[in-house]
Amino acid sequence: MKIAIVGLGIIGGSYCKALKSHTKHTVIGINRTLATAQKALDTGAIDLIGTPESLGDADITILCMYPQACLDFLRENGRYIRKGTIVTDAAGIKRAICPQMKSLAEEFGYIFVGSHPMAGKEKNGFDVSDADLFMGASFIITPCGAPQEAVGTLAKLAREIGFGTVKITTPEEHDRMIAFTSQLPHVLACAYVLSPSCPNHNGFSAGSYRDVSRVANINAKLWSELFLENREPLIEELQELNHNLTALFDAIKANDKETLSALLEKGHRVKQALGE
Amino acid sequence: MKIAIVGLGIIGGSYCKALKSHTKHTVIGINRTLATAQKALDTGAIDLIGTPESLGDADITILCMYPQACLDFLRENGRYIRKGTIVTDAAGIKRAICPQMKSLAEEFGYIFVGSHPMAGKEKNGFDVSDADLFMGASFIITPCGAPQEAVGTLAKLAREIGFGTVKITTPEEHDRMIAFTSQLPHVLACAYVLSPSCPNHNGFSAGSYRDVSRVANINAKLWSELFLENREPLIEELQELNHNLTALFDAIKANDKETLSALLEKGHRVKQALGE
Repeated sequence: MKIAIVGLGIIGGSYCKALKSHTKHTVIGINRTLATAQKALDTGAIDLIGTPESLGDADITILCMYPQACLDFLRENGRYIRKGTIVTDAAGIKRAICPQMKSLAEEFGYIFVGSHPMAGKEKNGFDVSDADLFMGASFIITPCGAPQEAVGTLAKLAREIGFGTVKITTPEEHDRMIAFTSQLPHVLACAYVLSPSCPNHNGFSAGSYRDVSRVANINAKLWSELFLENREPLIEELQELNHNLTALFDAIKANDKETLSALLEKGHRVKQALGE
Repeated sequence: MKIAIVGLGIIGGSYCKALKSHTKHTVIGINRTLATAQKALDTGAIDLIGTPESLGDADITILCMYPQACLDFLRENGRYIRKGTIVTDAAGIKRAICPQMKSLAEEFGYIFVGSHPMAGKEKNGFDVSDADLFMGASFIITPCGAPQEAVGTLAKLAREIGFGTVKITTPEEHDRMIAFTSQLPHVLACAYVLSPSCPNHNGFSAGSYRDVSRVANINAKLWSELFLENREPLIEELQELNHNLTALFDAIKANDKETLSALLEKGHRVKQALGE
């Protein structure tokens, strides 16, 4: 197949490199800044540099841009996409874009299948992209009414480039779960490192500091868009967390060892039950 | 030197194995349950099984028990320790035990140097102890008035068995920093996994879920003791976290992208400034 990757940042670049490393598909790289596309070509991450017009050659188009930018790109260039081919995205939120993505697909005659590759790093850009970024990761598909065959094609491709799990769900369930599994840890990490103690942690810290603070090295522009596009589920998770933190805080403040120990034991059992 | 390790759980067992792997010192293992000491002997983690009476042979005694259990043990067995030798602990809190540890040292004539090896796992017990647990980790010493020579001996030993950093500080600074670097992430992890979403995370999660939830697999008995023995600094850090979480929550709720992005950017800059 010919696969077009639009947006050669960490995710798009990793798609290119993974496709070139693990498959025989032809990779067309499309990027606003030509220098990055040239670098991708020079390093063998893509087979050729494309323009929006080249989308007519692609069997699958993967948009690796900020959520709203995906919509803008398709409004402008959807007409170049060949009818009946598959278009997917890589956005971390789904309800806020899937309905419009679907309308645009109907308008231009291609097939939209939403997807979210659950992988990333604390750094951005093509230079940190990695052929093995998706190894063992989860690939979430929100079919949004797409034919089963198109969903199957995308799932097969995901497995070919290293994804360990393919999860098929609705935009609603995706967004609710992502609020907990991904967005909440990012909010938490940022709140955590804002403590005045943080800059002095060296020599006093180990794995638990490292792990909870890791994703505070955040792309503020991207994540503020993701948080606000998924406000309701994220607000719910923040309220739930606040409720549980308050219970622990109250037990500590009241020097109530029994309640405190019981709450910690509850946390322990959740992890045990998950086999983690 | 002859080194006695009292308490052969994950930390004590790791001390034994690290001493046997990386030094030529003789290791005496003392444990309440004889079967564990026997296993340590059989697997070559110790040179001989000791009793409290054997402490007279040791040049350094390392107590690897719960904080209050260290005090109980010394009250009962401090008289067996040879005068002028070094006794240290491995407890994760210092203000709550160091003054009494020092009094007991003065009473029995040995030298107390507080210490805290900043390493661990989510599992407990001798079976998960590891000769390389301390590799690159931080070893915190609270001298509490001990002679510089004794502090130096302990610091040298720590480096011999793999610790990467030796930090010398007061019990007060130790406890304040540990509240942030270690205790707060443990409270957070437990509060986090108590969300009703947690049991369904599979297929929707990646590194950020894994990292923030990791230490929720907690030893509830040990950590409730550690939290309550360090209540004031931990309460302060919890209040600080609540303050920062509330600011982020308010910005998300108000759909205020500018404030939200500025807060995330602040977090990002803290990590950047630390080179993390």
